[in-house]
Amino acid sequence: MKRGVTVWFTGLSCSGKTTISKLVEAGLRERGLAVEVLDGDVVRQNLSQGLGFTKTDRDINIQRIAFVSKLLTRNSVITLVAAISPYREARELARKEIGSFVEVYVKCPLDICITRDVKGLYRKALESSIPHFTGISDPYEEPLEPELILYTDRELPEESAAKVLRRLQGLGYFS
Amino acid sequence: MKRGVTVWFTGLSCSGKTTISKLVEAGLRERGLAVEVLDGDVVRQNLSQGLGFTKTDRDINIQRIAFVSKLLTRNSVITLVAAISPYREARELARKEIGSFVEVYVKCPLDICITRDVKGLYRKALESSIPHFTGISDPYEEPLEPELILYTDRELPEESAAKVLRRLQGLGYFS
Repeated sequence: MKRGVTVWFTGLSCSGKTTISKLVEAGLRERGLAVEVLDGDVVRQNLSQGLGFTKTDRDINIQRIAFVSKLLTRNSVITLVAAISPYREARELARKEIGSFVEVYVKCPLDICITRDVKGLYRKALESSIPHFTGISDPYEEPLEPELILYTDRELPEESAAKVLRRLQGLGYFS
Repeated sequence: MKRGVTVWFTGLSCSGKTTISKLVEAGLRERGLAVEVLDGDVVRQNLSQGLGFTKTDRDINIQRIAFVSKLLTRNSVITLVAAISPYREARELARKEIGSFVEVYVKCPLDICITRDVKGLYRKALESSIPHFTGISDPYEEPLEPELILYTDRELPEESAAKVLRRLQGLGYFS
């Protein structure tokens, strides 16, 4: 039986989590592996409507993602989570809950993320119409010992995705 | 690759959904199959804290269970859902969303369920301290064309579970 694992992409909004997770997904599917992506935005719509962005609500959102990831992971699915997940403790709880867990820090300086601003949210946050915005009006707690760091200000998404695939292979999740 | 399926147990509180789903789970595990149980109470704690029992909240709860069941089912897991799920439309939406779906109506007359009253909830509901209680102060819409009906007022749980396993085998979900 193949080994499941949760690959947890954490980082600021616009750091590249979704883009890279999609490339990793494609790479894993090419190898015939079972994969699911739990993207922050999609999860909010399907599991967490009604929750906001206070620490409590973010923690509950992460717990729900962890619950689903655990179910998939123990059924041999490679589960790619792409969620800001700014709080270290919530990520550690997810790691503990899921067991088979690879934390990938999608690292990008805030000013570069602001320049990208795919959804125009930083602009709104800086005009302060969005409270609890990670990096602006809310903290982001960097991972202390992630299994992998991606530097998306100086790596192409394809390079970052290749690093993830190599790391997963190195950890024995596929051959 | 094995075929996944969601087996959706619907019925009144104390009709026997949890008991039977656990027996079915054991039977499937004995056969070496991948199984998960999504039990109403457990799901409420892990995915739906904060939701109540109005029709809207029940519908959202069922949508979340359906979302998770879909992910598991398409990854070849036999997913056993045990949830009152009193509204026909919500169950039909779950069927449509998941695709591979077997509806099991766990049928038991209300007065028998009230006699069982495992958690003492019927007593409270009848004393009207619990609003929106299915069968008492809220409707239960019977399935019109379930794949299987279990008559838990006159079948032993083991007999009901055996019927489910036979039906799943008959439908080709395992051999």
